[in-house]
Amino acid sequence: VTLMTTHAGAADPLPSWNEGATRTAIIEFVEKVTTEGSADFVPLEKRIATFDNDGCLWLEYPMYTQLLFAFDRIKELAPQHPEWKTTQPFKALLEGDMKTVGASGMKGLMEIVIASHSGMTATEFDKQVTEWLVKTKQARFNRPYNELIYQPQVELLEYLRANGFKTFIVSGGGIAFMRPFTEEAYGIPPEQVVGSMIESEFQIKDGKAEIVRMPKIHFIDDKAGKPVGIYNHIGHRPILACGNSDSDMQMIQYTMAGDGPRMGLFVHHTDAEREYAYDRKSHVGTLDKALDLADANGWTIIDMKQDWKTVFPPK
Amino acid sequence: VTLMTTHAGAADPLPSWNEGATRTAIIEFVEKVTTEGSADFVPLEKRIATFDNDGCLWLEYPMYTQLLFAFDRIKELAPQHPEWKTTQPFKALLEGDMKTVGASGMKGLMEIVIASHSGMTATEFDKQVTEWLVKTKQARFNRPYNELIYQPQVELLEYLRANGFKTFIVSGGGIAFMRPFTEEAYGIPPEQVVGSMIESEFQIKDGKAEIVRMPKIHFIDDKAGKPVGIYNHIGHRPILACGNSDSDMQMIQYTMAGDGPRMGLFVHHTDAEREYAYDRKSHVGTLDKALDLADANGWTIIDMKQDWKTVFPPK
Ligand SMILES: [Ca+2]
Ligand SMILES: [Ca+2]
Repeated sequence: VTLMTTHAGAADPLPSWNEGATRTAIIEFVEKVTTEGSADFVPLEKRIATFDNDGCLWLEYPMYTQLLFAFDRIKELAPQHPEWKTTQPFKALLEGDMKTVGASGMKGLMEIVIASHSGMTATEFDKQVTEWLVKTKQARFNRPYNELIYQPQVELLEYLRANGFKTFIVSGGGIAFMRPFTEEAYGIPPEQVVGSMIESEFQIKDGKAEIVRMPKIHFIDDKAGKPVGIYNHIGHRPILACGNSDSDMQMIQYTMAGDGPRMGLFVHHTDAEREYAYDRKSHVGTLDKALDLADANGWTIIDMKQDWKTVFPPK
Repeated sequence: VTLMTTHAGAADPLPSWNEGATRTAIIEFVEKVTTEGSADFVPLEKRIATFDNDGCLWLEYPMYTQLLFAFDRIKELAPQHPEWKTTQPFKALLEGDMKTVGASGMKGLMEIVIASHSGMTATEFDKQVTEWLVKTKQARFNRPYNELIYQPQVELLEYLRANGFKTFIVSGGGIAFMRPFTEEAYGIPPEQVVGSMIESEFQIKDGKAEIVRMPKIHFIDDKAGKPVGIYNHIGHRPILACGNSDSDMQMIQYTMAGDGPRMGLFVHHTDAEREYAYDRKSHVGTLDKALDLADANGWTIIDMKQDWKTVFPPK
């Protein structure tokens, strides 16, 4: 593995980041941990960086993309489930009554997610996600969701990898929903994606050995679940972690509590013009306590409007 | 990444393997999947290889190493657990009555494993395993257990990686028991180890964010659990898998059932002189059904005595 380091005169590794304290803090951190002989030097195998996905690497507002996928799948599956015509929250969803769907709360949404994410082989589910991403466009930006990724973050991931970091996603979203697109979108292969999981089973189906997805939650990779997901999947404490909401606080705390240099980052959505502005009162990606605790804990807040030259990749 | 391929005249990539059908089959497989333009070419990101650990990469006979660690830990912890003096199977273990310990069956052994593997932070457990491996020697070979690894398998892992494979361990053993030594022993980093897991929790302990290991099984990565572990951790179907017992059959079936070229390998312990000879009737590493089914399914049996020039690395 050849490591590219940023020398004076080298190409800007973060062209979509504005000059300022945030960009400087990131570059100083990376230079510090990669300078051999320095007291802050971190050996290659410990350069682990973890990133949340929704609202950190791609759009999450006004509704988590995976939920939109689940809603569309339920509509497609409806002919095979006549019972949904009379069962909530499926009935409301099929009738387009999103208010009732919303009122069904986390319990109702979980039923929709489980019904749309189980009962098929792993291979089939992968194909359903891939096809949905190709055919579905986000209304406001008129682009597929896997193009509504944050260009500055893609550059940050590449910059970290160029400096010997291994980059992981650690998301509350479904691991199997993310894996079909993370390699192409972020350069992160399936085996470096950590996320929530439903139960699955090994079965011989039509004579072929397959994984079949079951209608039961196995692990929720959110809040205090994130450090657990990191321990189970990665087995190291990261030295850099980035999130965008209070659900990422435990991951950032876990990251910052190790020895040696550490960096904890939160993306703050401050840009209603180019993307969305939301934080303390938002129903998705609530960023409240983390804003209050950032200074005292040495967490770095990325101000989308100030720090990012562009938001999405060019069309 | 620069790929090293085996050219005529290049150094032998498998010096501890004897010439013969097994070695030839392995080399032909690797050359086939790495030859660009060939119908059997497999792109880099799909070159996933999974290896069992106990009896496949290191010694497992006459007793799984992790159990020996558990027994030793119980003895060390005994002063803090006066109740063990009167509770089975702990009482028998502390009195050296291994017959009674054995008679406690899987349930009793699980109690011993859980009691010795939980109640500490992840960092503390890692240190306990590392220290145990340094101070404990296997009696017959008078060497630490992490030196009783199979040299031909270490070469096979290196050969696969030199040909662009990403190598993983997929073991019924504890993920946290393996991770402290797999990088040094096999060149496999913690994040590429898949194994059985106990529950763990994120806690702020003495003011520090830590993972704490809990006394409850979370996932058993064995038999039909192996393909599930592969799906959850890796997210791809491997193209090569290697095991040594009937517990690896589902992993091999899952591997072989994908499209394109596939290789499934079983280590057969046939060498009582240099290691041990055991298979169908053994209480550890039972290899019975897999021997019967190998030919019909195109699985390759590695005959330790015939195929391996040496077993362990030189002292
Ligand atoms: Ca988020
Ligand atoms: Ca084994």
